[in-house]
Amino acid sequence: MNIKIIIRVLGFLLLVEGIAMLLALGVSLIYGEHDIRAFFSSAGINIIIGGIIVIFTQKAIKDIGKREGFIIVSLVWIVFSLFGSLPYILSGAIPNFTNAFFETISGFTTTGSSILNDIEALPHGILFWRSITQWLGGMGIIVLSMAILPVFGIGGMQLFMAEVPGPTPDKINPRIRQTAKTLWVIYLGFTVAEMLLLWAGGMSLFDSVCHSFTTMATGGFSTKQASIAHWSSPFIQYVIVIFMFFAGTNFTLSYIAIKGKFKSVLKDEEFKYYGLFVIGFTLIIFIGLLITSSMGVEQSFRDSLFQVVSIITTTGYATSDYLQWAPILTILIFGLFFFGGSAGSTGGGIKIMRIVLLIKNSYYELRRMIHPHAIIPVKFNKHSVDSKIITNVLAFFMLYFIIFAFSTVIFTLIEPDLASSMGAVATCLGNIGPGLGNVGPAENFVHVHPVGKWFLSFLMLLGRLELFTVLVLFSPTFWKE
Amino acid sequence: MNIKIIIRVLGFLLLVEGIAMLLALGVSLIYGEHDIRAFFSSAGINIIIGGIIVIFTQKAIKDIGKREGFIIVSLVWIVFSLFGSLPYILSGAIPNFTNAFFETISGFTTTGSSILNDIEALPHGILFWRSITQWLGGMGIIVLSMAILPVFGIGGMQLFMAEVPGPTPDKINPRIRQTAKTLWVIYLGFTVAEMLLLWAGGMSLFDSVCHSFTTMATGGFSTKQASIAHWSSPFIQYVIVIFMFFAGTNFTLSYIAIKGKFKSVLKDEEFKYYGLFVIGFTLIIFIGLLITSSMGVEQSFRDSLFQVVSIITTTGYATSDYLQWAPILTILIFGLFFFGGSAGSTGGGIKIMRIVLLIKNSYYELRRMIHPHAIIPVKFNKHSVDSKIITNVLAFFMLYFIIFAFSTVIFTLIEPDLASSMGAVATCLGNIGPGLGNVGPAENFVHVHPVGKWFLSFLMLLGRLELFTVLVLFSPTFWKE
Repeated sequence: MNIKIIIRVLGFLLLVEGIAMLLALGVSLIYGEHDIRAFFSSAGINIIIGGIIVIFTQKAIKDIGKREGFIIVSLVWIVFSLFGSLPYILSGAIPNFTNAFFETISGFTTTGSSILNDIEALPHGILFWRSITQWLGGMGIIVLSMAILPVFGIGGMQLFMAEVPGPTPDKINPRIRQTAKTLWVIYLGFTVAEMLLLWAGGMSLFDSVCHSFTTMATGGFSTKQASIAHWSSPFIQYVIVIFMFFAGTNFTLSYIAIKGKFKSVLKDEEFKYYGLFVIGFTLIIFIGLLITSSMGVEQSFRDSLFQVVSIITTTGYATSDYLQWAPILTILIFGLFFFGGSAGSTGGGIKIMRIVLLIKNSYYELRRMIHPHAIIPVKFNKHSVDSKIITNVLAFFMLYFIIFAFSTVIFTLIEPDLASSMGAVATCLGNIGPGLGNVGPAENFVHVHPVGKWFLSFLMLLGRLELFTVLVLFSPTFWKE
Repeated sequence: MNIKIIIRVLGFLLLVEGIAMLLALGVSLIYGEHDIRAFFSSAGINIIIGGIIVIFTQKAIKDIGKREGFIIVSLVWIVFSLFGSLPYILSGAIPNFTNAFFETISGFTTTGSSILNDIEALPHGILFWRSITQWLGGMGIIVLSMAILPVFGIGGMQLFMAEVPGPTPDKINPRIRQTAKTLWVIYLGFTVAEMLLLWAGGMSLFDSVCHSFTTMATGGFSTKQASIAHWSSPFIQYVIVIFMFFAGTNFTLSYIAIKGKFKSVLKDEEFKYYGLFVIGFTLIIFIGLLITSSMGVEQSFRDSLFQVVSIITTTGYATSDYLQWAPILTILIFGLFFFGGSAGSTGGGIKIMRIVLLIKNSYYELRRMIHPHAIIPVKFNKHSVDSKIITNVLAFFMLYFIIFAFSTVIFTLIEPDLASSMGAVATCLGNIGPGLGNVGPAENFVHVHPVGKWFLSFLMLLGRLELFTVLVLFSPTFWKE
């Protein structure tokens, strides 16, 4: 195990976090609020510690193997969240360490569950920091899952494992850099586009920036206690719907679309099903709201579309409290907790591709039953899917289910109400944000027992890194040899 | 499609049902109660209709293919339940057709959910009929899954598909007969043994017969409104626990054990995990009850053991209302709704073997992640499990999960309370009996809307025939050619 290189990489990343803190410092300087000192100190701590580490580990052998990769990936989120909670603590915005850590890891994992009771009372620097944690987290996850991990041959974060020969630094750096750069440009482009549209729609520049950050990350932190319901403008809400949808789409597809190849995008099976799920759930809930609520047609449509897209993409913004809807509509929304965005998006959860593969496999099994001697592989995008991938998807789904069930059981010790417990676990594991019952869209997580907050924090990390990447560290095989 | 042979087989089976009704007639004659006429008429209708069918289809070609097999298997349960509800209706015990059908299919599928509010008020013949429907259903399912279907190469009911050459009547009959006979002898032997023990323990002969019928079928119908809680005798309760455990064990293993090969039984992996799950859940709930309830040590142990075995084997008897326990203990019990007995037992649900295979596969996937180029198959009973079987188990699990989720959502239209809805769907799909909330162990299903009763009846059938056997009938491929 090359521990030095692990520490060195983390040191570099602390510098990156420090720089992000400097941006927040800039915001607090502009507004001249009391959080200036907090950001100054936090950025200082990050940059000094990061700098020292980088300087003292210069002699580390630049050989990052698979095992080092797994460890770094899990540690980054933890270290980022530990240091990232400094601004909250030092500014007094969230004086309690547990709460501050919860809010920070909820940011970096793009979950969006909050412990804040009065968001509007916070200084702008802190609000900006909250948003930028999500934006960095979202950026991190797509670069990690689409540029870095495939090259290292670390599976689990991408569905179709790239079979690449062992990594040698000189060869892989250019590849990683190029993919990462493309993704970065698209991510930034979408963010800027959304920001401009929101601004044009009447949102303040500051709120536009923060919301475009947290939309593209499918994060869901808002600068307002009422979330997007604060803005009654349909234009603003529809703009956010569109960009949530983009954020839940495979970024490679967005790249293809930007290149003008719309046909290939529409042919993509995951995208088709993603669209179908959104349309299907929206229509059912729309009709349900028309029947059961006193809302008008347009608002019923907008509210159902918004909530469906917000939950399926695991963003978690709210324009309406789905707990106030008819029970069946609430339960439909809860069903969406187990979908998640597309592979290669910033969305969390189980992911559309896995769900489609699993449903297809079940359907094909009926055919296999009638023709037991025929070999009937699952097809996806017109290619036969290797049984290895089906087995992997199965393993993921089963683990997700087991973790959800066990965690819910354990969590009832902390939160006896079954619906609240299920909601809290599902929303954190799926990196969504709001849950059910006591942790619904109109509530927050501040009243959860500290032990529960640490537990949920772990679930956020587990979900964000798609289970395997974290769980592999607990496997004895990993530490052998 | 050879429709004649399908009708002929159903005709034969109607005769069998008619004979079972004659047994119940015998009971009602002994007690001289008002249900004599009802059984006389019901048996008459069955035997006359069955007889006419058998006589008029003598010329049917005795060629039962796969597709005929699938159709017969699904139809048997429906036809049995339709005709089996006659005694309830004609005797006035359950005058309403929907309720009578629900009670009957709940019997034949060995579910044990009831719509009866005052079981003790019923005549003995009816109580006996209720028990015998379950006993026949249990017998039917093991003969079907272990003797008939494997020979026909119809998968879905057994996990390791037998690869047998196409069925030709002269060759397969002896094989089916022999396996069926062995199973029948064991089933009958267990039933008699339990009956004698219960009788010796102070239960009346009549109740002993009825309860040994419904125990061995993992059915759960009792002759008392309070279920097994009616008998406070620990001896009786422990005897029932032991036989529920046997009923949830693969009957082939029982056969091996009876032959004295105990070592092979203890080496069987499914049996090991079955035992581990029972011990594990019992211990946790036992400790939970000690902490949270005012019950004594022995009763806490007995109640937790009884409820764990009752639910995991999908029997559904109750000695204690688990809804009155601490929330986490109730939820643990609800978790057990998704286990089920062993393959080749009379138990329903997902089944221990499937769960073990799925958990093993998830665990092996972590190893595969570390060594992506190694081929690491799942091992079961020291043999590598073919990836086809893993895919089948995956398909089953996914379907089970989807059906559970969708049905719960649909059922909330009928029963808005989420826990009640989840409980009703899970208990009927898993052929267990009691649910949660409004359909808990102290409640029954009489207040469920008629549409809901038909829906739940369908779920019982679906669960009992392990999904595929029924669902394949809805697949277009099935009806092609």
